[in-house]
Amino acid sequence: MSDRKLQLIPLGGLGEFGMNSMALRYGDDIVVIDAGMMFPDSELLGVDIVTPDFGYLEQHREMVRALLLTHGHEDHIGGVPFLLSQIDVPVYGTAFTLALVERRLEEHDLLSTAKLNRVKPGEKITLGPFTVEFIHVTHSIVSAVALAITTPLGVIIHTGDFKVDPTPTDNELFDLHTLAEYGKRGVLLLMSDSTNVDRPGYTESERAVRPRFEDIFNRAERRLVISCFSSSIHRLQLILDLAAEYGRKVGFLGRSMLSVTEIAHGLGLLHIPDSILLRPQDLMQANPAKVVAVVSGTQGEPMSSLSRVAVDNHKHLSVEPGDTVVLSSRIIPGNEKAIYRMMNHLARRGADIVYGSTKPPVHVSGHASEEELKLMLNLVRPRYFVPVHGEYRQLAKHASLASHLHRQGLEQTFVLESGDTLEVDIHGARRGAKVPVGRVCIDSGTIDEVVEDIVIRDRRHLSEDGFVLPIIAISKQSGKSEALPEIVSRGFMTFDERSELLQEARRVVAKTLESSSEEERTDWGVMQEKIRADLKRFLIKQTSRRPLIMPVILEV
Amino acid sequence: MSDRKLQLIPLGGLGEFGMNSMALRYGDDIVVIDAGMMFPDSELLGVDIVTPDFGYLEQHREMVRALLLTHGHEDHIGGVPFLLSQIDVPVYGTAFTLALVERRLEEHDLLSTAKLNRVKPGEKITLGPFTVEFIHVTHSIVSAVALAITTPLGVIIHTGDFKVDPTPTDNELFDLHTLAEYGKRGVLLLMSDSTNVDRPGYTESERAVRPRFEDIFNRAERRLVISCFSSSIHRLQLILDLAAEYGRKVGFLGRSMLSVTEIAHGLGLLHIPDSILLRPQDLMQANPAKVVAVVSGTQGEPMSSLSRVAVDNHKHLSVEPGDTVVLSSRIIPGNEKAIYRMMNHLARRGADIVYGSTKPPVHVSGHASEEELKLMLNLVRPRYFVPVHGEYRQLAKHASLASHLHRQGLEQTFVLESGDTLEVDIHGARRGAKVPVGRVCIDSGTIDEVVEDIVIRDRRHLSEDGFVLPIIAISKQSGKSEALPEIVSRGFMTFDERSELLQEARRVVAKTLESSSEEERTDWGVMQEKIRADLKRFLIKQTSRRPLIMPVILEV
Repeated sequence: MSDRKLQLIPLGGLGEFGMNSMALRYGDDIVVIDAGMMFPDSELLGVDIVTPDFGYLEQHREMVRALLLTHGHEDHIGGVPFLLSQIDVPVYGTAFTLALVERRLEEHDLLSTAKLNRVKPGEKITLGPFTVEFIHVTHSIVSAVALAITTPLGVIIHTGDFKVDPTPTDNELFDLHTLAEYGKRGVLLLMSDSTNVDRPGYTESERAVRPRFEDIFNRAERRLVISCFSSSIHRLQLILDLAAEYGRKVGFLGRSMLSVTEIAHGLGLLHIPDSILLRPQDLMQANPAKVVAVVSGTQGEPMSSLSRVAVDNHKHLSVEPGDTVVLSSRIIPGNEKAIYRMMNHLARRGADIVYGSTKPPVHVSGHASEEELKLMLNLVRPRYFVPVHGEYRQLAKHASLASHLHRQGLEQTFVLESGDTLEVDIHGARRGAKVPVGRVCIDSGTIDEVVEDIVIRDRRHLSEDGFVLPIIAISKQSGKSEALPEIVSRGFMTFDERSELLQEARRVVAKTLESSSEEERTDWGVMQEKIRADLKRFLIKQTSRRPLIMPVILEV
Repeated sequence: MSDRKLQLIPLGGLGEFGMNSMALRYGDDIVVIDAGMMFPDSELLGVDIVTPDFGYLEQHREMVRALLLTHGHEDHIGGVPFLLSQIDVPVYGTAFTLALVERRLEEHDLLSTAKLNRVKPGEKITLGPFTVEFIHVTHSIVSAVALAITTPLGVIIHTGDFKVDPTPTDNELFDLHTLAEYGKRGVLLLMSDSTNVDRPGYTESERAVRPRFEDIFNRAERRLVISCFSSSIHRLQLILDLAAEYGRKVGFLGRSMLSVTEIAHGLGLLHIPDSILLRPQDLMQANPAKVVAVVSGTQGEPMSSLSRVAVDNHKHLSVEPGDTVVLSSRIIPGNEKAIYRMMNHLARRGADIVYGSTKPPVHVSGHASEEELKLMLNLVRPRYFVPVHGEYRQLAKHASLASHLHRQGLEQTFVLESGDTLEVDIHGARRGAKVPVGRVCIDSGTIDEVVEDIVIRDRRHLSEDGFVLPIIAISKQSGKSEALPEIVSRGFMTFDERSELLQEARRVVAKTLESSSEEERTDWGVMQEKIRADLKRFLIKQTSRRPLIMPVILEV
């Protein structure tokens, strides 16, 4: 048994932000930790969702024993439907996490075939050579767990996403004891969340937002509109509790807000005070001083409820002068401009906007800061350390943090990016062969519409300098082009129909045709290349621009 | 005289970030305060620079007495060449500000004709009915001024950009006394910088970065690479001073870094210790423990020196393991991803990266926070208040701040956006008629290449769903299309040459042609519209996508 090796195969989320997925293989058995998605960079034009390429798992489908989920955020579960559509594998997670997965599976018609297995923190399951214990951790979402995976070569700890909240609002404390126990007995390898490694000190407790919210409820003289992530059950509980205290009714707006609160309520994770809820359609009828609207769309997503409210285009809610709008969330990098635009619209409606780094805070992070990361390293005392969940700069900083602890016992830290593997055997750990990983771009949330790389490259190209199409009509009879070629273009600045440049470009194409040999002219592929090259050279020289040039040859 | 009115005409920078420009008109005399530019939103695909539309000034060219510059940042002077290419107007500013303007004018071959007039803080000039006093303020750039403009109707104060730095590194204190004097005598209207209105408290002094920099110089065992804005003369002075103390030589990299330091040195604003400079080409030869490279490119601009260093593609500098890279600047919203990408590359080279909100800070803002803004309002005691420099949410917050001061004497606050005007006469102030303003998009820094709106719209369209071009060859003889139409597409996902959808689309176009009357078929415009409409309907139904459809009809 001990001559076999253990492999860590990061499929996503290492060296990139989002779409976390990690495979763990021992011999012919694989378990997968999380299957997340990410929202694309703006460079991936027109792409809606990105997931890891699960090709490695597809290739080894008969080995995959289970998908283990740490918690219900999209960057950990958003890829589940896409993975399950490729391989049939049982899924393990806490009740709330699985309930969120069910929503997604339903959208993709995969719910009836999925094998979902609820687990509780403290529970252990055995999957081939692996024994997995689920350990309760605190995070911005409820029911988050870390994993302790006992393998024939030792124990692997994966923290999932966490912070060490000393005063969680639901009083469910981080299970430090179980981690300490594993640490005491000896841990082979730790994988730990690197998201907030840049932040010194400790992340504030979720409870730290209460004073700010109390102040907001105290001061607000009219309607209160609060936006947060719909999965922030702690935050929603706080809003419900304060609404009850301050005699306001609560209306939830937005599809995800409605469905997630229903799920959390059904599982007993969200306590909704009696007759406090208001139907969305009744929001505007109620006394403004007596309502709170809780609205999804903190990131300025154009179709979200809050964005529509901001431009006064929501069926059930208008913001009026004197209303207070609270953005209780962080700005995900890349969304700044959209969020500021939304805030400008809300300010134009006369709203007082509360957001950002106020003191006391209106939002706290769910991820561990530097001191908590050190605590985790000191508690678990791993022999090897692999930072996970972050861009390279964050992983590197987390690695350097671990090495500066100067702890005895930590033999080595590995900064792996998705596709880099790590091998562990009785002699120790080392980097293994790379596996092909990548991103799958999905156009509109359906599984079929995968956008190929070339389409994205073309779109980017088009978006920068537009396109120029020389169209050459060649006579079937003579094999020659009898008129000056046409040129069609869009998005390319200096071309209009009357321009001198366009006329000259037509002559450039005609000249390329004339100067080609008879043989070349019968080979369309060659002619297209020659025309493209000549016209490109001409346009770069004249305009310094590089539009997409695509010669079209028509036989007429 | 007193029956005339005073007008405030914001041409840019109110309700938007950047390209600040404000015209002040009394009767037939106009002075313009600043002529900035902005870098475009990513939606303005392929646009390099955006300036205000100076059409209002062009129309009233004979009235424009002067362009007054508050300081040398691009969002205040970047539009000067574009304005001067349209109207010939004398420019007033401090020596350093004008030196930076000269650089820009030179690039556009406008330097020889420009009328540049150096002024000093404390100086007064008279321009028609206006008397302008330049008042020294503290900001992240040296030689910044506020303006006190005495008009027949009263005094207008424009703060420019400022913070109230109690301990500026050059010991040139904010001239609070002159402002207080004006405040005491009575000010008609104040325009004040709103950039940091969201920040509570006071902005830290420029001197606050010194402890962090000392710590960095103390700890660095190898090469130090520091990036900051090239116009941050205070910051550059600090680096030079510490380099001298710690026995390191300094190499400046980057075109703007070299030219700005030369200008500042020439004006006596930057003291360069003896024989401390290293030529760029000597950087890698020197002992790594004995050099500092000061590099431009804090915003991750792809062609900047630091971006090239990050991917190890710079002629004169390589970052090696153990080197320290310091990003001493803020992240301008929208640049996050580019900056993080650059940092990932630097981390891959093994650099230790110092950035962000460390304590003590590695960067401090140049703009006043809430308490300083209150100080300005209390000192100037204006009758009317117009917040400037900010998006709507910031202007609105600044206005609300002013109204919450409950000062006697402040009659009214106006939140104006670019194009909104304000009129003041002996009876008071009120909103005036709008003037047409707008943005001029410039493609590559030259004055000629103005990108039209339609080009930008097309580019955006293309970037989202690509294009589809049905090409119909019509015989000159028969007036008919004799073969099935061709369809060419790019960036449109589901079309490849063999696809069923493409074949069907060709048949859709053919059917449109067949079902058209003889008369329609002779009118190309009508045929193009019909084909576009039919094909669009077909593609939306089949794919839910809206590529740019552009029918091409060729007579052959």
